[in-house]
Amino acid sequence: MSAAAPASLRVIDLIRKKRDGIALSAGEIAFLVDGAVDGSIAPEQLSAWLMAAWIRGLTREETCSLTLAMRDSGEKFDSSRLGKIAVDKHSTGGVGDKTSFLVAPLAAACGLAVPMISGRALGHTGGTLDKLESIPGYRTSLSLAEFETVLDRCGASIVSQTQSLVPADRILYALRDRTATVESPGLIGASILSKKLAEDLDALVLDVKTGSGSFLRKAEDAEDLAALMVAAAESAGTRTVALMTDMSQPLGRAAGNWIEIIEAVELLRGLRPPESEDLRELSLILAGWMIHLGGIAVTPEAGYALAEAALADGSALAIFFKMVDAQGGDASVFDDTAGFHAPGATQVLESWQSGYIAEMDTTAIGLAVQRLGAGRAEPGQAIDPHAGILFDARRGAHIEKGQPIATLYATGSALFAEPVAMLRQAIHISATRPDPVPLVSRVFTLESAENHLREKSF
Amino acid sequence: MSAAAPASLRVIDLIRKKRDGIALSAGEIAFLVDGAVDGSIAPEQLSAWLMAAWIRGLTREETCSLTLAMRDSGEKFDSSRLGKIAVDKHSTGGVGDKTSFLVAPLAAACGLAVPMISGRALGHTGGTLDKLESIPGYRTSLSLAEFETVLDRCGASIVSQTQSLVPADRILYALRDRTATVESPGLIGASILSKKLAEDLDALVLDVKTGSGSFLRKAEDAEDLAALMVAAAESAGTRTVALMTDMSQPLGRAAGNWIEIIEAVELLRGLRPPESEDLRELSLILAGWMIHLGGIAVTPEAGYALAEAALADGSALAIFFKMVDAQGGDASVFDDTAGFHAPGATQVLESWQSGYIAEMDTTAIGLAVQRLGAGRAEPGQAIDPHAGILFDARRGAHIEKGQPIATLYATGSALFAEPVAMLRQAIHISATRPDPVPLVSRVFTLESAENHLREKSF
Repeated sequence: MSAAAPASLRVIDLIRKKRDGIALSAGEIAFLVDGAVDGSIAPEQLSAWLMAAWIRGLTREETCSLTLAMRDSGEKFDSSRLGKIAVDKHSTGGVGDKTSFLVAPLAAACGLAVPMISGRALGHTGGTLDKLESIPGYRTSLSLAEFETVLDRCGASIVSQTQSLVPADRILYALRDRTATVESPGLIGASILSKKLAEDLDALVLDVKTGSGSFLRKAEDAEDLAALMVAAAESAGTRTVALMTDMSQPLGRAAGNWIEIIEAVELLRGLRPPESEDLRELSLILAGWMIHLGGIAVTPEAGYALAEAALADGSALAIFFKMVDAQGGDASVFDDTAGFHAPGATQVLESWQSGYIAEMDTTAIGLAVQRLGAGRAEPGQAIDPHAGILFDARRGAHIEKGQPIATLYATGSALFAEPVAMLRQAIHISATRPDPVPLVSRVFTLESAENHLREKSF
Repeated sequence: MSAAAPASLRVIDLIRKKRDGIALSAGEIAFLVDGAVDGSIAPEQLSAWLMAAWIRGLTREETCSLTLAMRDSGEKFDSSRLGKIAVDKHSTGGVGDKTSFLVAPLAAACGLAVPMISGRALGHTGGTLDKLESIPGYRTSLSLAEFETVLDRCGASIVSQTQSLVPADRILYALRDRTATVESPGLIGASILSKKLAEDLDALVLDVKTGSGSFLRKAEDAEDLAALMVAAAESAGTRTVALMTDMSQPLGRAAGNWIEIIEAVELLRGLRPPESEDLRELSLILAGWMIHLGGIAVTPEAGYALAEAALADGSALAIFFKMVDAQGGDASVFDDTAGFHAPGATQVLESWQSGYIAEMDTTAIGLAVQRLGAGRAEPGQAIDPHAGILFDARRGAHIEKGQPIATLYATGSALFAEPVAMLRQAIHISATRPDPVPLVSRVFTLESAENHLREKSF
């Protein structure tokens, strides 16, 4: 039990308080979290509180209290023995987002430790662990001791959450998922941060997606989330920035599992396919911030330059292969990536008219990727490592009728009809060129996050 | 399962809808109620919906839908075989409120059937069933068949809820009690009405308490509740009025169990102790409305006159004794009520100063009655039938220092210290005479209820 939770509290009073729009103290929030984990507070009481928190909102202080109480609800990683500055990056999730496979080795190549605990695919977004598990033999489920060994050898390790790490989040998330209380900036922020801060980080870069493929579709909610997380993580002693980044189309050209790994490795090898340029740029920006916040570079721009050098000299690629090997993966599959790629069936989606690719409903595209077999409709479903979509044209490109927009991969051709129909709905081709969307629209440092929260009365 | 509930609904969508302040349809509410009763909807999902309903409020239509779905969730009484108009009165609960023992025989004496299903003491309010059970042998737990037999013989019967009657209310109330979602006009209204309408009533008179001893302390909330219940009950085809009545002091002179029965029987015998005058007046007003709505009198005033006549000619007293006998009670205890009354210990509370009895914290008085042994802090606790408080002076009376304010009854004198201290806190004696409070401050008919709901945007 957390030391901050007074024993005399009654859960019904805390539910009533939040119901009436009054903020709870750190001790009161710790009491709720402790009660969730030890089972002394019933699920129906927790979910009444969650609904009150969803509707009334959580203040900055409540988000911070909830983050810390959840972080401390179970086992934690101790990064101090690594002898390096520990940094990580977290993204709120999107389609085709494979920056982790680039930023982790890039930051490690610059002398940092990247203890990255990641998640799985659910809904329209892909999962870092599912992508890594498309590499034959790669084990994502390591003990904290094995995690430390890989980090010692490679500087980076990407693993799944253990059962004992942040149990409060598993319990509360399962309730939120069943009670329509997921999409709340404070609750999402605390859920994300509690897991990241359990990695014992010195610095954290948050990639908060905006646009049609983002989890929080309203830009305002995404900004609130970003600012809340920066303020809460900084209060907990972790230097943190949040970048608002574009998810109005898939990031890079591949959306799936193995095909995303290939795309990341191509960039680590120094190749620059034009359809992957946004992925390369965002990865370098994120890595630049990690390197800067980790104290290796005086500015994020200087960090970007160091990351670009680590890409050019092959040191990041070497770290990626070393990590794959250290986690039981067979890195020899990268000798002939196309040879290993056996999707079973392939279908080219040709453009049904001439014009500019104007708007993309990226959530619908993510769901099409899922239907091809690359994602899950329910937790625990099996995933096809080879399924996915490779885009030949990106937003803003001019395309002729009959020209290929994308190539779809699945185990059999019967799986194509529905995703093709979804893509034809999701991709709008227009006679006029769409306005470009900036890759990074805003950066929240502690100062700008605090200003934002003050303006929004959090 | 209710016919109105489409099978394709998903509970999470209904929680989300209410969370976002959108009213649910009758079919959607029936789906929730059916799922609560058959166990297909988990308690944590029901309580998330209850919290959303508490914060967002229920519309008039939602309150009506919830009332009907709950009413239809189990067994129902069929009043048609009685061959009489079925009417009832329900009070939102107070201290010293024993009008049921007067209005049931009064209305029955005027030719109506009164199938009254009542509740138990909890919190600061007394319970009709606990009061009746202070009569030796009186059985409150009758089957619906026995209930019908007593009604046939006596015209009135006061019993407890059966397990199979309105099971949805038991399930939802237990959740509301644990999740701080009790005090909501819509949820309270549906809970009350579902049970009353399961009695198959032609007409219903609601006594909604206001003031320091009422369940909803804010007059505005009590009015909303009254108007919502009138509108919902009328939509269900039951002629209904709600009277807003005073609970700024205990009703009548007795608060307890057996001593309340004695007070009611004294009035039925035609006695008029001045401290019981408010109880007599309110009982005649309520009975007058029942008789009017039941079609026996053209106006509530004419109903009042008929009720007063039934009091004067002893016919209501005869019905009360007949009902006691029919439900197994020993009516001979009323031959010498003082002789049967064996409280164990008695203490007189003398006034600590001279002046007017100005304000009474009636909730605190109710809790003092409970501590004497007449009520329950937890469901299922045993009750002392003889415990209680008999008031010698009422609000507005001038009293000299040392003069008795009240007499306390309990099984032993050790039980007096705390209630005496509570009463000294609860009763304020002032140099100035307090303004009188009207016994009935407002009457909601269907028309005035609809106007009120329109004004308040329900």
